[in-house]
Amino acid sequence: MSATIIDDLRAAFDHTTVLTGADIDARYHTDMAGVPVAPPLAVMRPRSTEDVSTFLKLCHGARVPVTTQGGMTGLVRATMPLAGEIVLSMERMNAIEEVDTGGGVVIAQAAVPLQRVHERVAQHGFMYPLDLGARGSCTIGGNISTNAGGNRVIRYGMTRDLVLGLEAVLADGTVLKGVRKYIKNNTGIDLKHLFIGSEGILGVVTRAALRIFPAPAERQVALCALPSFGQVVSFLELARRHLGGELTAFEVMWNEYYRLTVERVKGVTGPLPTHHPFYVLFEASGGDAERIHADLENLLEKALGDNLILDATLSTSNASAAAMWRIRDSSVELGRSFPYAARMGFDVSLAIDRMDQYADTIGARIRAIDPQAFAVVFGHAGDGNLHIGLHHEHTPEKRDEFEKLVYDLTGEFGGSISAEHGIGILKRPYLKMSRTEAEIETMRTLKRALDPQNILNPGRIFTV
Amino acid sequence: MSATIIDDLRAAFDHTTVLTGADIDARYHTDMAGVPVAPPLAVMRPRSTEDVSTFLKLCHGARVPVTTQGGMTGLVRATMPLAGEIVLSMERMNAIEEVDTGGGVVIAQAAVPLQRVHERVAQHGFMYPLDLGARGSCTIGGNISTNAGGNRVIRYGMTRDLVLGLEAVLADGTVLKGVRKYIKNNTGIDLKHLFIGSEGILGVVTRAALRIFPAPAERQVALCALPSFGQVVSFLELARRHLGGELTAFEVMWNEYYRLTVERVKGVTGPLPTHHPFYVLFEASGGDAERIHADLENLLEKALGDNLILDATLSTSNASAAAMWRIRDSSVELGRSFPYAARMGFDVSLAIDRMDQYADTIGARIRAIDPQAFAVVFGHAGDGNLHIGLHHEHTPEKRDEFEKLVYDLTGEFGGSISAEHGIGILKRPYLKMSRTEAEIETMRTLKRALDPQNILNPGRIFTV
Repeated sequence: MSATIIDDLRAAFDHTTVLTGADIDARYHTDMAGVPVAPPLAVMRPRSTEDVSTFLKLCHGARVPVTTQGGMTGLVRATMPLAGEIVLSMERMNAIEEVDTGGGVVIAQAAVPLQRVHERVAQHGFMYPLDLGARGSCTIGGNISTNAGGNRVIRYGMTRDLVLGLEAVLADGTVLKGVRKYIKNNTGIDLKHLFIGSEGILGVVTRAALRIFPAPAERQVALCALPSFGQVVSFLELARRHLGGELTAFEVMWNEYYRLTVERVKGVTGPLPTHHPFYVLFEASGGDAERIHADLENLLEKALGDNLILDATLSTSNASAAAMWRIRDSSVELGRSFPYAARMGFDVSLAIDRMDQYADTIGARIRAIDPQAFAVVFGHAGDGNLHIGLHHEHTPEKRDEFEKLVYDLTGEFGGSISAEHGIGILKRPYLKMSRTEAEIETMRTLKRALDPQNILNPGRIFTV
Repeated sequence: MSATIIDDLRAAFDHTTVLTGADIDARYHTDMAGVPVAPPLAVMRPRSTEDVSTFLKLCHGARVPVTTQGGMTGLVRATMPLAGEIVLSMERMNAIEEVDTGGGVVIAQAAVPLQRVHERVAQHGFMYPLDLGARGSCTIGGNISTNAGGNRVIRYGMTRDLVLGLEAVLADGTVLKGVRKYIKNNTGIDLKHLFIGSEGILGVVTRAALRIFPAPAERQVALCALPSFGQVVSFLELARRHLGGELTAFEVMWNEYYRLTVERVKGVTGPLPTHHPFYVLFEASGGDAERIHADLENLLEKALGDNLILDATLSTSNASAAAMWRIRDSSVELGRSFPYAARMGFDVSLAIDRMDQYADTIGARIRAIDPQAFAVVFGHAGDGNLHIGLHHEHTPEKRDEFEKLVYDLTGEFGGSISAEHGIGILKRPYLKMSRTEAEIETMRTLKRALDPQNILNPGRIFTV
């Protein structure tokens, strides 16, 4: 079977398009963790949507599984080839086809790196709001397949909210030509949502029309200390009301996160003392620097007057704004200041009115296992998204127990076990904490209907 | 078979829940057009999601078709019972279950009228941004099933963008419990999008979590005259850049629409002369009246300086703002000033950079059929959505020819034949103008997978 499919691919494509054996570079079977798995059967490097279609038709006929690769920056092991799989690397479909400033649309092929979209539309004074740490490597196709989130979700939404239309190829080679530029299109089932966030199990995204926006000239940042999580919630509501569309970030840090980051991470200084229960970093953006400054000042005055916040500081320069962001952006460095074998990271969503109790319960339950274990909690409060660093230096052997504890609790709180990162292989055992049996069975029904031979990223998210 | 299902329903539910014969009011088989069809086999009025599930399980087993009804305000004949169908009227599931201002969420059952959501969240100083003319009758479930658009899409998006989570019942009675309050949830296929905008063919929406926002205290309006559509596009870009999140409407009117409305509709006065090629009405909203006024003035000054606009007037009071909106809102009245039998309305989407040529081509093609026929074009330019009134007083017999002309042209321009209204039965013959054969076939695959007995709104959008 394997020999046949390779022969068929060689007959259909040139030697730069189908790689086998020694021609397969390690990057096709290595992800962010840096440890390669066994090489794939072959690597397919299409130049066009037609190539993808021809390729999938052959794989579908031969029942050969395929894993589709973008920038290989995922965190859930969704694109590392499993035994017997062919890698479909989109790397040569990397053209930006159109920038339409009147319509507010950019059309890009799947393998365009996110940062290249930023740079290209910036030439026209525009922004594509999606932004992540992996911006230099991650691709538009990968962003879509994982419904990437990032820094500006509170204002512009997730990737899903930015995709006007897309082209995708189904498992049997059928091409769905859906690159449309309009916002309103109530003509039956909106098929693009099948492919956004479904980690490549229902189709291969080849091109997309994405929303772009005039770039705001100014960004300013404030850091506040708050006495309780109830006040964090009230302050978020006040900030939304006062800043409206100017509010582009609202990040919360529990005391431990702020204090430990200021104490342990080199180059980070805290402009506020470290004893307050909660800290909020928020950002406003717009065209007029003076106005934004005045808006932030007014908001802080009102919040102080209402006893929502205890203390606050406002950026006075790009440098001071960057210094404040450095506190929030140092979660990786904070993690690395603790022993590798005894720390874990989580990325969950839950209703904001339950976050406080959730964090308290995690703290209590981990201390019940190990009195010296602790959690640092922080995240995009405005998006309902928390990150949790869990440290258990004295009980490294209890890793699985801690993991189960967090996911079980997330399920109990009706939360999502994956706000941004997806499920892939790594989180598959915990999918049932966030989705009901009926939902997972419906996902299986869709998978069987659209990919009856189970060739697209099989075993990712769930097994059929 | 019919007798059996009625017996089964009577055994399962009380007499207020299952109506037959003379107990079936005409409203269950009459829509906006006001002409009743034959009564349905029965009317089912569930009190709960469990009722819906039990009901569908029985219909699925007996292969009895069902049409689900909300406020009966649709325009495409999607919910009028066909022969042999049972009406599933959601009318008794009409509770607002929760208003969570901290999280920015309202949870409502399917039959809550849109206006009741507005009124309820307004008590907390919030708004649910979806707004349509039918607000008093249309329901949350119907809004979701049709992905309703309306007046504030440019700022807040369509219904799809406002649904955080929903509960739906599949054809076989399976309940998908997806009423979740968080924005970020990358845990496999996002099933809610199957039910949003798919006109009830894949499941019955029973409850939903919807996004709400702090209500802006102030709205101001400006009306401008522009020399060309190219300038309309440039002015939209300028307005987006200057107003950012304050921009809550951007409506364009071709000369014929503005001129004829001012000339023919009682109570409408035009603050600008009627000879300009294009008119734009736009609205800014926010918390601070003075600021909005200053922003609008600055924008108009800049646009005049750049020769984007020829003339402009700014609202000075709620009354003058309402008078300007009346021009844009008088499309129905303008239509009624022409003979009923020789006028038609269309609701299309297309890329903004093609609108001008599209409108010109429609004008040329209708004049080729009837030199005295003409089109009035207007719409939500900021959303890529145009409405077209087509008047052919001297050739009323050519209705079908004109209809085909407009839909064919929309297809040629890569547009959508239904921006907001859906497909239902009425637009089914034209679905292929906006969706490819492969897309329609994929819709059929989904329909067969999720509703194998074809009992949910069969024949709406497409036939299986």
